[in-house]
Amino acid sequence: MSSARSTIPGIRLGTAAAGIKYADRDDLVVVEMAQTATCAAVFTRNAFCAAPVQLAKRHLTQESPRYLLINSGNANAGTGQQGMQDALDSCHGVATSAGCKVEQVLPFSTGVIGENLPVEAIRGAIPGAMGSLSGDGWEAASRAIMTTDTRPKLRSRQFEFEGVRVGLCGMAKGAGMIRPDMATMLAFLATDLSISQALLRECLANAVKPSFNSITVDGDTSTNDACVLMASGASSLAPVVDRDSPLYRQLEHEVTELCIDLAREIVRDGEGATKLVEILVQGAADETEARDVAYTIAHSPLVKTALFASDPNWGRILAAVGRAGLDDLDIDRVEIWLDDLCIVRNGGRVAEYTEQAGLSVMGQKEFTIRVVLGRGGEQAQIVTCDLSYDYVKINAEYRT
Amino acid sequence: MSSARSTIPGIRLGTAAAGIKYADRDDLVVVEMAQTATCAAVFTRNAFCAAPVQLAKRHLTQESPRYLLINSGNANAGTGQQGMQDALDSCHGVATSAGCKVEQVLPFSTGVIGENLPVEAIRGAIPGAMGSLSGDGWEAASRAIMTTDTRPKLRSRQFEFEGVRVGLCGMAKGAGMIRPDMATMLAFLATDLSISQALLRECLANAVKPSFNSITVDGDTSTNDACVLMASGASSLAPVVDRDSPLYRQLEHEVTELCIDLAREIVRDGEGATKLVEILVQGAADETEARDVAYTIAHSPLVKTALFASDPNWGRILAAVGRAGLDDLDIDRVEIWLDDLCIVRNGGRVAEYTEQAGLSVMGQKEFTIRVVLGRGGEQAQIVTCDLSYDYVKINAEYRT
Repeated sequence: MSSARSTIPGIRLGTAAAGIKYADRDDLVVVEMAQTATCAAVFTRNAFCAAPVQLAKRHLTQESPRYLLINSGNANAGTGQQGMQDALDSCHGVATSAGCKVEQVLPFSTGVIGENLPVEAIRGAIPGAMGSLSGDGWEAASRAIMTTDTRPKLRSRQFEFEGVRVGLCGMAKGAGMIRPDMATMLAFLATDLSISQALLRECLANAVKPSFNSITVDGDTSTNDACVLMASGASSLAPVVDRDSPLYRQLEHEVTELCIDLAREIVRDGEGATKLVEILVQGAADETEARDVAYTIAHSPLVKTALFASDPNWGRILAAVGRAGLDDLDIDRVEIWLDDLCIVRNGGRVAEYTEQAGLSVMGQKEFTIRVVLGRGGEQAQIVTCDLSYDYVKINAEYRT
Repeated sequence: MSSARSTIPGIRLGTAAAGIKYADRDDLVVVEMAQTATCAAVFTRNAFCAAPVQLAKRHLTQESPRYLLINSGNANAGTGQQGMQDALDSCHGVATSAGCKVEQVLPFSTGVIGENLPVEAIRGAIPGAMGSLSGDGWEAASRAIMTTDTRPKLRSRQFEFEGVRVGLCGMAKGAGMIRPDMATMLAFLATDLSISQALLRECLANAVKPSFNSITVDGDTSTNDACVLMASGASSLAPVVDRDSPLYRQLEHEVTELCIDLAREIVRDGEGATKLVEILVQGAADETEARDVAYTIAHSPLVKTALFASDPNWGRILAAVGRAGLDDLDIDRVEIWLDDLCIVRNGGRVAEYTEQAGLSVMGQKEFTIRVVLGRGGEQAQIVTCDLSYDYVKINAEYRT
């Protein structure tokens, strides 16, 4: 359960510098899975999905993956037929070098949209990445997949089961265009357990919902989001085939916690973010309306700039609740809390509330805005960040 | 049809300084309508609507209005029962001074949410505002209703009908929390025609749709939005009672144009805005999906920061189209144009497109982003602005 060294038996990672966009750093990663491995993935639901996403989905239906090929600096999105060809050619580079089928390679790209992928540079760098494959490659890989991220996002966990240590490791990248609708920007997780493909898929689907699918930086769902969970099968434990088994339940719990850790890291590193804020909406008639309210608050530029200013401007929160599109919302039943401080009750400011108390909660690096709707027993929670000068700076200056 | 001096026979305006929030400026406006006047209004659809909005709606059902009482600096929103009492007490101040029923006074407030209205200061200033009532008061009134606006928004038009000159005048305020869902922040329009209440309401409803209801600065629907159209009845022309009459049709056209002018002024003066951008979505299966796509583009922080940077980052536009929630969207049929420059066709960049050409369109103060979906014959158009450092500055520093 504690943090551990980042290695997963049966998983090796190699990196190289292909010079796609950044000078003097690695920007290409190859991940190799043992032959015993299974692999599951979830992808963006943006209708405009990038060539590598389309190809990875196709390959997953054709063969059992052995390699992931990941590049940063170029998303290979909005590149039409050329983009598909480029993604395929890149996969061929790995297949040739590794001696596997091209369908056993899954491609992932992140970076600028609409530029053609520099395939020759990538193919030229693949042998170097293959040559550096190592069980210890997680740290270098987590750096190589960064774009506007200010720091790598790498987490590992371990737990014991029947005296056997089980490892879990995951890395993610993402700082902007973050409102994952199926997975985050890019996240790659691995365990050494052996587990059926079907259960692995279920485990991943359950893990991404409260983690990567419950965060938002700017409401912009990326064209390239993907999250991959690999199980190398190197463990001495018997294969996991039963969803009711204690080991599966523990695995799902641990994977979920790992995903939540990484998802929060993405928000903490949100473009220009200075604060991480949980939005918890309770007392909803159903989960959908709870999420609608939570996202309306989290996406309100007025709320986000107030978070940046540590300004307990609850009127902006209440206004966001009011425009979230809930039928027959009775504002007089709404409560708003900042951590344990109630600031709004019955649609108006609580008499004993003081601005000073509100300021002291909002001055923290992390806190919770809790909204109680008084319509039922359902709830939803998402995690977001503030909107600062630096968000504008990063996104006004990125690319040009 | 040309711009004209801002007076409407039968309408007088007076202003005063109540010291609600701003020093050394007027912040209170009284508008007086002739006894012959009719008046129509539309209000915010935010479920959390302010006390003055609730009271104005109620008074409109009770009596024919004679006075509007408008204050800036305090929205009287989120103020519960006290807020209702304060709004009513303010109206009483006008009723007492004017010798009319309190139900003949409609209150409007704009400014900070969640602070109690300083009723005594307002009541104390009402006699001064009443004493300054004048047909020439539009300019001073348009300044007194400003909050974060950097300039007043006042427009007038006139047209001739059967040799008689008909006047139209309107003022608006609003720069942030702007995504009107029924009307804008605050807008007050007047004509000297005589027209039935029912037709006046229809005229206003038709005029706000392509104007105030088709703009967005930050997606935040205000708690206090209202738009009022007054018809003083001072004109020598016969009352307008027939929606198929040439005079009604011309009036509706002129009111709509006036509203569009004022709505664009609001966007131009959007908080921190440096550009006005029309988002025109064509080839939609229905108007709803066209509006959904247009608003998704207009609210994308990544698109808005690219607009600020004059960066023709069409990938961000395409990504916004892709996440707008359209069923079975075929990205390969989508086109994106910047004014007359086609940058995306068949889901990818047009071969002959050059970055330089894109930059030169986006460097303009005003331009159009046109998206063709290839799904049908419907369209929608909205007007928005960019997201700049100053938006963050204004909203992070406002109030605290």
